[in-house]
Amino acid sequence: MRGKITLVLGGARSGKSRFAENLAIESGLSRLYLATAEAFDQEMERRIAQHQEDRGSGWDTVEEPVKLQGTLEDHSAEDRVILVDCLTLWLSNLMTGDQPIEEEFKKLTATLGTLPGPVILVSNEVGQGIVPDNTLARAFRDHAGRLHQQIAEIADEVYFITAGLSQKLK
Amino acid sequence: MRGKITLVLGGARSGKSRFAENLAIESGLSRLYLATAEAFDQEMERRIAQHQEDRGSGWDTVEEPVKLQGTLEDHSAEDRVILVDCLTLWLSNLMTGDQPIEEEFKKLTATLGTLPGPVILVSNEVGQGIVPDNTLARAFRDHAGRLHQQIAEIADEVYFITAGLSQKLK
Amino acid sequence: MRGKITLVLGGARSGKSRFAENLAIESGLSRLYLATAEAFDQEMERRIAQHQEDRGSGWDTVEEPVKLQGTLEDHSAEDRVILVDCLTLWLSNLMTGDQPIEEEFKKLTATLGTLPGPVILVSNEVGQGIVPDNTLARAFRDHAGRLHQQIAEIADEVYFITAGLSQKLK
Repeated sequence: MRGKITLVLGGARSGKSRFAENLAIESGLSRLYLATAEAFDQEMERRIAQHQEDRGSGWDTVEEPVKLQGTLEDHSAEDRVILVDCLTLWLSNLMTGDQPIEEEFKKLTATLGTLPGPVILVSNEVGQGIVPDNTLARAFRDHAGRLHQQIAEIADEVYFITAGLSQKLK
Repeated sequence: MRGKITLVLGGARSGKSRFAENLAIESGLSRLYLATAEAFDQEMERRIAQHQEDRGSGWDTVEEPVKLQGTLEDHSAEDRVILVDCLTLWLSNLMTGDQPIEEEFKKLTATLGTLPGPVILVSNEVGQGIVPDNTLARAFRDHAGRLHQQIAEIADEVYFITAGLSQKLK
Repeated sequence: MRGKITLVLGGARSGKSRFAENLAIESGLSRLYLATAEAFDQEMERRIAQHQEDRGSGWDTVEEPVKLQGTLEDHSAEDRVILVDCLTLWLSNLMTGDQPIEEEFKKLTATLGTLPGPVILVSNEVGQGIVPDNTLARAFRDHAGRLHQQIAEIADEVYFITAGLSQKLK
């Protein structure tokens, strides 16, 4: 039997990470934070440090910008919850490489269907603003939308967070 | 008695078209797909072809980028559901012409109130990102917001789609 | 005992101001409209005039682009509801000055916890589009997200408006 899969969506600074962290804490399991962020500039360093401070202690951390599937397989266990924060950064990292994006999505959802322990995935809603001028940004939000649909389809629970408040979509 | 009016809103690649298509299929009526898209470049061609492939068979299709009201009047019938996909592209097409936009909105809502058959209208939520720099984009999202309010007011049902999951707003 | 605090969020032209105005009218109290907008160009002048026309009569109005806290303290009373429209413009005005933004947020939430009369605060959701290119826009949406979380935490009721339709988040 596979572990429970939870998708937590929300806009920028909507409180989605905190909500996901609380879900992980309430599980009572040991907690692994799988960070997809890479600190390639100072703004990003500050964001990562802020997230770590907000998260508090009681977490193991592993950083993996691209190989999400393998990292999940290596660390998943029945008595451990993994929090992936966040899918949109993973997608952004993927898009700087040359992997076929949709293949990676299929591999991820297939892997999520086989892991022994629970996984909570955090992702940014990016598709509810004006159509971006820039081709790459349009491709990014199309990919993000498809990824969210695919994860939501296999997820046991899906939440949307606004102003720190949750709506259960599934 | 007029046909049932349903508005389906959602962000980019949120699954709103598929949700709307399923509503049309579940109606058991004959189905007309009213496409407002014009394939003026390769990216658009790909998007349109992808939508057609996703939609599958069992649909008649009519393409009308601008004259939405007349096309609805010509094709509406008690035993046929019309799916308009999507209002934001129609608005975008309108804005390249010189019709007064708010007048067109009034005509559309008036027409919707008189059609014999059901209509499902799909539209993109575009107003929940940062204020766009560009005047035209600001005008576009203001118009889109007003249009959604006007259609929602006369609609029998309104849905918001996120990651393929629906919330019923009305 | 402090007055009731209500936060009304929504995208551009979502009908959030009208929803908030109706809440104020339904309170049966005397009504003060606290406008944070400054008419620094013609587009803004038109938007402000349009809002005033939509609002109708029966309102006192005070304009204060920056000193929100003091203006609330000066005008709050048990028999008067204050409608603040909107927080995002206030934030935008703050960011052109040199006050420390997070300090201003703390002062505002502290003040809201002590006012005798009810306050309805309207704000724009701006965090659900693509990440903006521009550093200032990213800082703005981060601040806006944090502000919404902080107000939502102390609020008695929080609504999200889409196409003129409300969802109660709290």
